[in-house]
Amino acid sequence: LRSGRVDLGQRSETVHRANLSAIVRGIHEGGPMSRSDLVASTGLTRSAIRGLVHELTDAGFAMESTAVRLGTPGRPSPVVRLDPRSAVVVGLEILVDSIAASVVGLGGVVLREARADRPGRNLEVDAVVGDVAELARDLDFDADGTLIGVGVAVAGVVRRSDGLVSTAPNLGWRDAPLGAKLARALGVSVPVAVANDADLGALAEHRRGAAVGVDDVLYVSGEVGVGGGAIVGGVPLQGAAGYAGEIGHLPVNPTGRPCRCGSTGCWETEVGEGALLALAGRPRDAGRAGVDRVLEDARAGDPTAVAALSQVGRWLGIGLAGLVNVLNPDLVVLGAMHARIHPFVHQSIELELDRRTLAAPRSLVRVVPATLGPNAPMLGAAELAFEPFLSDPAAWFSGRDVSLRVASA
Amino acid sequence: LRSGRVDLGQRSETVHRANLSAIVRGIHEGGPMSRSDLVASTGLTRSAIRGLVHELTDAGFAMESTAVRLGTPGRPSPVVRLDPRSAVVVGLEILVDSIAASVVGLGGVVLREARADRPGRNLEVDAVVGDVAELARDLDFDADGTLIGVGVAVAGVVRRSDGLVSTAPNLGWRDAPLGAKLARALGVSVPVAVANDADLGALAEHRRGAAVGVDDVLYVSGEVGVGGGAIVGGVPLQGAAGYAGEIGHLPVNPTGRPCRCGSTGCWETEVGEGALLALAGRPRDAGRAGVDRVLEDARAGDPTAVAALSQVGRWLGIGLAGLVNVLNPDLVVLGAMHARIHPFVHQSIELELDRRTLAAPRSLVRVVPATLGPNAPMLGAAELAFEPFLSDPAAWFSGRDVSLRVASA
Repeated sequence: LRSGRVDLGQRSETVHRANLSAIVRGIHEGGPMSRSDLVASTGLTRSAIRGLVHELTDAGFAMESTAVRLGTPGRPSPVVRLDPRSAVVVGLEILVDSIAASVVGLGGVVLREARADRPGRNLEVDAVVGDVAELARDLDFDADGTLIGVGVAVAGVVRRSDGLVSTAPNLGWRDAPLGAKLARALGVSVPVAVANDADLGALAEHRRGAAVGVDDVLYVSGEVGVGGGAIVGGVPLQGAAGYAGEIGHLPVNPTGRPCRCGSTGCWETEVGEGALLALAGRPRDAGRAGVDRVLEDARAGDPTAVAALSQVGRWLGIGLAGLVNVLNPDLVVLGAMHARIHPFVHQSIELELDRRTLAAPRSLVRVVPATLGPNAPMLGAAELAFEPFLSDPAAWFSGRDVSLRVASA
Repeated sequence: LRSGRVDLGQRSETVHRANLSAIVRGIHEGGPMSRSDLVASTGLTRSAIRGLVHELTDAGFAMESTAVRLGTPGRPSPVVRLDPRSAVVVGLEILVDSIAASVVGLGGVVLREARADRPGRNLEVDAVVGDVAELARDLDFDADGTLIGVGVAVAGVVRRSDGLVSTAPNLGWRDAPLGAKLARALGVSVPVAVANDADLGALAEHRRGAAVGVDDVLYVSGEVGVGGGAIVGGVPLQGAAGYAGEIGHLPVNPTGRPCRCGSTGCWETEVGEGALLALAGRPRDAGRAGVDRVLEDARAGDPTAVAALSQVGRWLGIGLAGLVNVLNPDLVVLGAMHARIHPFVHQSIELELDRRTLAAPRSLVRVVPATLGPNAPMLGAAELAFEPFLSDPAAWFSGRDVSLRVASA
């Protein structure tokens, strides 16, 4: 029976741990909540909430303070916060042009972060792993509370089960065991979870950015390559092995340019960084700085730059029209380079959506720029690393609660 | 708190009804099961299963018989079956060329069915509704047990919440309240659930056809138009309002032919029935019979027919390559016309998938023809109509169980 499985034998302990998880996840995602809010949002009794919150404060993960409730009658309800330093993760990001590292505390608080541009640098897996590990060590990632895990966003196709980068055409990697290599380089024994950068950008924008509260979202992330991440019914779209979302390799132009993936006419050959730069008469490899120049020129009214952006916008609209027909999202979030060029491309996008999207999904969808900026994938990597903790915080309790010790024995 | 909500106040009654649902759904989808199988698959105790099965037999929905267990030691465990005539649904299908109706019993048993070709007939909503209702009445749909609901598969974009057909380009419909009209024409007060034909074909192939047990599936249904339905992580992909899966309107050839949706170069202009017929030198509107002729010619070695099929296969592969990159399915199921032409197009498809799909998702995916034949959408419509019953069979109990009566009061 695939659904409705209810295992009565373990019910009370399972429910207890699920309730702790619900409280921690709710505050981690939504911010501090009063006990009354927790009662309302969980359906648990006031005394059950009191007991669970005490377990969390006893274990050192939460703190309570009295809220000042202006204009609300009655006794103010204590506000429950998470202690960001009680559980931390390392969020890492590996793009073609840059790497980044962060230490993120419970509740999604960025404690420390750093980014290093490395255009033209050695892209060998070991060289990149060494540089990323150094960046993370410079942030003293184990100087805080319990290290829960490490999350890594990488511009490639990742097998979720073991962090193997199957292909990263723009990094030139194939079958690279990135998760294992990073665990060794960092000298950590906690899990290292690796995922595609756009999938994690989508997760971050859904949890803390432009798509908070929206259940059906397509996140498009354009840089050298173009990736995507979708949220479907509130859940990240993974596919059979975590490879879903490779929207940059939709064939949109049968007479188009060769793509680094080996095919021709992929969407990324029309809407990636190289396409914009070439249309604007600049070297394809001029990078982020080159794109900034194109944007400056366009702001100054330069017709070549304006035409290049409008052409990229037209192709953005063509691909998005197809994806909106397939996925029926409420919201399309443009990230990375596509967020930066949004003011210059949104009209062309809307025009193509009007022409090419069926009326019903067209009437529902909005296209907006991402709000978390270039760090979205790294923030998503941190969220990924927090996941085991959020699913079962009690597993990190150090034995104050007898029933939990018994249950895990 | 979005996840992990556990409402303790109603726990025991909620768990009881969920357990009844798990048993009924398990047998409906997987066939008769012994009590021992039910114990193993639900995690419930033997005595809990005994009690729940008795409730189902008392209510008239299940029957028990003693299994003969060859070679198994010990007392044989009674086998629990559902009575197909105790709860029935009407499954309907509305395509451009034909309509169909069925009476389906609990467990997915097709009790009666009929299909009527109506090529060239009046496609006005009311005319089609009248014909479909007549076909259903001819099947004596209310001659059996309790009528649970009506499900309708239609070749159009459907708003799930109320059965409004927003657009059906190939039927020429816009904003047609199909669900409401059918309820009136059939004279029923049970719910009439309407959904896109390809979405329902996907559901049926997933539950009873080529994709049983596969969690990530893309179903492609080619006829006059081309539709799709995806199963993502075991769950049908719906999108924000149930419009997802319109894969026929992926722009694959922006300088291609005009599409009935108003755009140009949509996938269905390259792989739909009209495209195949035109390439084979036949009238675009020669329909299913015309396609049969093309297949006969190809079997006889006619080069025009063979070339036409291989060209359609190439475009099938191009579009599928993009969709596999986006969705990372384990399995692509070709339905309707695409199932019939599969022997002549599968090589071209595989070739384009090799060229255009990223290595990782490519290595996982298989492309197979559907196994349920042309009735798949209608069978899916019946499954849709059973859904409220499967989710809470106790709501149909007629008061034998006091606790249920109290709970629903």
